[in-house]
Amino acid sequence: MDFTSLSNSHRSIRQYKDTPISEELLNEILHAATRASSSGNIQPYSIIISRDKAEREKLWELHYQQDMILQAPVLLTFCVDWHRMIKWCKISDARPTWDNFLCYMVGAGDVFIAAQNAALAAENAGLGICYMGTTLNNAQKLSDFFECPRNVVPVTSMVIGYPDEDPDARDRLPMNAIIHHEKYHDYDDEQIIEHYKQKEEDGWNRYMSIPELKEKIDKSGVKNLAQVYTDVKYTKDENRMASRSLINLLDKQQFGNN
Amino acid sequence: MDFTSLSNSHRSIRQYKDTPISEELLNEILHAATRASSSGNIQPYSIIISRDKAEREKLWELHYQQDMILQAPVLLTFCVDWHRMIKWCKISDARPTWDNFLCYMVGAGDVFIAAQNAALAAENAGLGICYMGTTLNNAQKLSDFFECPRNVVPVTSMVIGYPDEDPDARDRLPMNAIIHHEKYHDYDDEQIIEHYKQKEEDGWNRYMSIPELKEKIDKSGVKNLAQVYTDVKYTKDENRMASRSLINLLDKQQFGNN
Repeated sequence: MDFTSLSNSHRSIRQYKDTPISEELLNEILHAATRASSSGNIQPYSIIISRDKAEREKLWELHYQQDMILQAPVLLTFCVDWHRMIKWCKISDARPTWDNFLCYMVGAGDVFIAAQNAALAAENAGLGICYMGTTLNNAQKLSDFFECPRNVVPVTSMVIGYPDEDPDARDRLPMNAIIHHEKYHDYDDEQIIEHYKQKEEDGWNRYMSIPELKEKIDKSGVKNLAQVYTDVKYTKDENRMASRSLINLLDKQQFGNN
Repeated sequence: MDFTSLSNSHRSIRQYKDTPISEELLNEILHAATRASSSGNIQPYSIIISRDKAEREKLWELHYQQDMILQAPVLLTFCVDWHRMIKWCKISDARPTWDNFLCYMVGAGDVFIAAQNAALAAENAGLGICYMGTTLNNAQKLSDFFECPRNVVPVTSMVIGYPDEDPDARDRLPMNAIIHHEKYHDYDDEQIIEHYKQKEEDGWNRYMSIPELKEKIDKSGVKNLAQVYTDVKYTKDENRMASRSLINLLDKQQFGNN
């Protein structure tokens, strides 16, 4: 498919058929991932393929029971990986000192760039994808699950499979809400209201159309989309707990020497 | 272009013509960026366009004098941005608590996913791109330069322009060095040597063909590619200094309440 049509037609897929993905197609997707830009051409990442049903059942728990993990035949977990590079350096009589936060961030950037190439390659082949934000929230347990050695940390995951739904592309903020020229230009209240007007309506209607979320929203008594974000979806306690857990993991996996 | 050819033909471009990029084409590129997946559809990022020559001269200094910033007509700087979302929430009588490390990481993921869509859209239109890893190293000064408010942090940048060179695609590690099945499978020394054999040769020859790097390498007395990485390109002092600076910036910009 032409890239413009491909990128314009993206929507995340959350319902999958159990049709398997051939080895050959999955290899093409992973090959596209590795062709993306990489800082210093180091490729400080690894990709773990989960196909086995029993393993995916355990991962379903670790990803807060999101059913698409059970439905889709493949889950990819992208990890920052300096371990492989460090091993090579030691064999080559070089002394690596990449046990710091910068290296984690360099790896995380490469992870997402590679993952997005994989996402597009999958969509180009008629597959659907969904990124799993839960990987950051539960990185500690996922790291244990995959038996990641020091200097390896899971950063994002993606389910891939044949779509069993055909949703519309989601709303996006208007371009002039995202773009700045030469300097960051702050927004006044009127601009903010204007930029979020459409989102406020589309987002609220969408969340109210998802039974589980509607139930949560009704229970919580929140009255608009912004409050759904602050009080239902991304709450202080959950965020801080996940932040602390992620920082502890970075320490444990040797990215904490700054 | 078909996506498979597009992703396979990627190479970073470091020499540019000064041919301008039309407003229309740049808008298409930025539109592709905003169509990429976004966690919770929050789009917690902003993109700053630098076209002005005098501004790009200052940015050339902040990016360690990499000449492609002066040559290419456009530099994009991608920032994690929770400021806009927080403003909207406050106007909507919601109480956001996104001043933590998790939110920075969620934003950074969205930044790189969006940036990679922009990179591919540019390449699809015959333009060349190069990511600037220096953005992470010098995020503090770039944040000041762009006048980023609290909750906004630069994460990556990309030069875009018409190529004035035609390099081959770079070497990559073999696929089986990157891929794991079900669990992370550690490497023994023989596997590492095998995985890095081609890179060791190609990478060394490439660096020795770049006069500035050759001079640095000759001066330092390093003897192989691994040592170039540890002793010349990614040294302990520089990495730790950049790590501390980035952590301080995250504190200052209100991502440090964990």
